[in-house]
Amino acid sequence: MKRPLILISNDDGFSAKGIHFLVDIARRYGDVVVVAPDGARSGSSLSVTFSSVVKANLIKEEEGLKVYSCTGTPGDCVKLGIAKFCDRTPDLVLAGINHGDNSAVNVHYSGTMGVVKEGCLKGISSIGFSHFSHSMETDFNPMKPYIEKIISHVLENKLPIGVCLNVNAPDIPKYAGLKVCTMGEGVWQNEWEERISPRGFTYYWLVGDFKSVDKQDDNTDRNAMKKGYIAVTPVKINVTAFEAINNLSSLEQ
Amino acid sequence: MKRPLILISNDDGFSAKGIHFLVDIARRYGDVVVVAPDGARSGSSLSVTFSSVVKANLIKEEEGLKVYSCTGTPGDCVKLGIAKFCDRTPDLVLAGINHGDNSAVNVHYSGTMGVVKEGCLKGISSIGFSHFSHSMETDFNPMKPYIEKIISHVLENKLPIGVCLNVNAPDIPKYAGLKVCTMGEGVWQNEWEERISPRGFTYYWLVGDFKSVDKQDDNTDRNAMKKGYIAVTPVKINVTAFEAINNLSSLEQ
Repeated sequence: MKRPLILISNDDGFSAKGIHFLVDIARRYGDVVVVAPDGARSGSSLSVTFSSVVKANLIKEEEGLKVYSCTGTPGDCVKLGIAKFCDRTPDLVLAGINHGDNSAVNVHYSGTMGVVKEGCLKGISSIGFSHFSHSMETDFNPMKPYIEKIISHVLENKLPIGVCLNVNAPDIPKYAGLKVCTMGEGVWQNEWEERISPRGFTYYWLVGDFKSVDKQDDNTDRNAMKKGYIAVTPVKINVTAFEAINNLSSLEQ
Repeated sequence: MKRPLILISNDDGFSAKGIHFLVDIARRYGDVVVVAPDGARSGSSLSVTFSSVVKANLIKEEEGLKVYSCTGTPGDCVKLGIAKFCDRTPDLVLAGINHGDNSAVNVHYSGTMGVVKEGCLKGISSIGFSHFSHSMETDFNPMKPYIEKIISHVLENKLPIGVCLNVNAPDIPKYAGLKVCTMGEGVWQNEWEERISPRGFTYYWLVGDFKSVDKQDDNTDRNAMKKGYIAVTPVKINVTAFEAINNLSSLEQ
């Protein structure tokens, strides 16, 4: 019987520290194929490439590990990896470890979660790991036993079809444990830093402050992280607002 | 009292036929600010631009209408439009009319729905309109009374916070009406067309066939469109898989 096959991608690029850390953990659980962007793709969401071509290069090959860099988006990487570089359907799709937080509404912007949603759309159990620190020097070691616990659990039990996991760790040296959470709510404010170019035109950098609107007792990922937990938020692919259907039915008349 | 303010964007670019058609309708309901990409951004999802700058140009200004082209993604356009080019908070964010279908799981890839999700994340009632045909010559006139009905309804009643609308029209000359639906399920197959460049390297185009897995009686957007309806799917921003939380609680031990 073959070992589990684990496809790994990210949105920081194949050379980022976070993906190396995750690959080292994942190799103990199965054969690993990495298909990751050739550079930073933060904020990629589940974008895909329609209007230009996608290329990929085999960077590294050894027993139980192949690494490809890809010119496409994180979503492209998963699609291409499954179709072209995996000899069997992966048992698991992993993303990260992302250098930066993807909790709360950031699940919508995240390229890390783009990887995870695409894996989930393909019917594969998929997990995204993110760490609050943006530093490329982050020490991911405190996350390690928790990542192992989650991977073991998911390989053994699988996730329900249409459900994937968004795992976010605060930037602290010791965690209180794992907490299964809901998506935090909030809003980005002051999002644009306006500058004038040397030639006099106006341009903008996307920045901003996230203002949470969670109540103190809400079981959200943001609240869990504040209490020192690693937040595990199950995310669903079917985004229908079922509870709104009745109220809209007057549109049908 | 000021007229309603309507912010419009898309993922086909400010010069696409679909957005002109939508702007002409929307102007009857309020003042319109268009902030749309300077070219095609299909498949943008809710991607945003972190690693380069964003610029915008005022293309057109007349009574009740301003049009800006923007170098960013559809999501950037909404963020920048609200922050910099609207003199008050918009009452409505509209996207489209997209040249191509965004029903079923395509809500996740769609730049049109990226616009809509971003509007919704900002607490504004937001609606995306898409038409099954990819042709830039599409006749959108049959959609017109239905678009008017939906805009009127939403301006009057507002959408619940955290809920937006994904409206998809089949490519037929006469519609059976509007149908309020759930998101269809299915999977993209045969997604990559592999080619060899003149210089001998392999590259890929993202293509594919969508295989619906909806049952015949499911009230999905795909099924409604098959029956000649324009599908109105309410989409929620909180993507927590609440029903999966209990089953994952063993992770907390």
